[in-house]
Amino acid sequence: MKADELAIRQLVETWMVATKKGDLPTVLNLMADDAIFMVPGREPFGKEVFAASSQAMKEVQIDGVSEIQELKILGDWAWIRNRLHITITPPNGKPATRSGYTLTILRKRPDGAWVLARDANMVI
Amino acid sequence: MKADELAIRQLVETWMVATKKGDLPTVLNLMADDAIFMVPGREPFGKEVFAASSQAMKEVQIDGVSEIQELKILGDWAWIRNRLHITITPPNGKPATRSGYTLTILRKRPDGAWVLARDANMVI
Repeated sequence: MKADELAIRQLVETWMVATKKGDLPTVLNLMADDAIFMVPGREPFGKEVFAASSQAMKEVQIDGVSEIQELKILGDWAWIRNRLHITITPPNGKPATRSGYTLTILRKRPDGAWVLARDANMVI
Repeated sequence: MKADELAIRQLVETWMVATKKGDLPTVLNLMADDAIFMVPGREPFGKEVFAASSQAMKEVQIDGVSEIQELKILGDWAWIRNRLHITITPPNGKPATRSGYTLTILRKRPDGAWVLARDANMVI
């Protein structure tokens, strides 16, 4: 596996593990400052709103499994199509599961680190 | 505007006009044979299912307005982030409107034509 592909797969894995731990700073470090997130039924939002939403959900346990369906590297850009299975457990609540796909654009920073740039999330 | 950007904007415009006319062959000609469409709440589907769904909806008038928010060309690949406003009118029925965003990956074929390759559609 080539270095860029490995780095992108590690980014996804690190994101999932950090989300499970509630480690928001690590997740934020994996996205571009101008990242844009798109989900059904609301306007696109950026890094600050992502952080605030995560902060508001910090008591909720989010455990996800990712299966990368496709990964295409285009120089300093890349896109991946990912399938996610998420288990969401509120404090003292019952776990709920969600699944679906994402289409994500990634970018290689000048320092060589890959970061998420655009994310379309259809997990419902 | 560069030739590739112009071609991609024309692809989107042609797609919208052909959809409004119910001209399915033209729409199918604007996508790769291995195109994959993703929408919330169902498994990804390809060109044949797209065609069958459109055929089943042929009595429904679909009139859309597209506003391209971002367009990035990466050699023979490109991605666009698009905002759509759609008006759907069933035969003898009242128009319903939907809006939302898409994230779309496009590819330049060896013959120079741009086609849709992957589409994440969050219009609900």
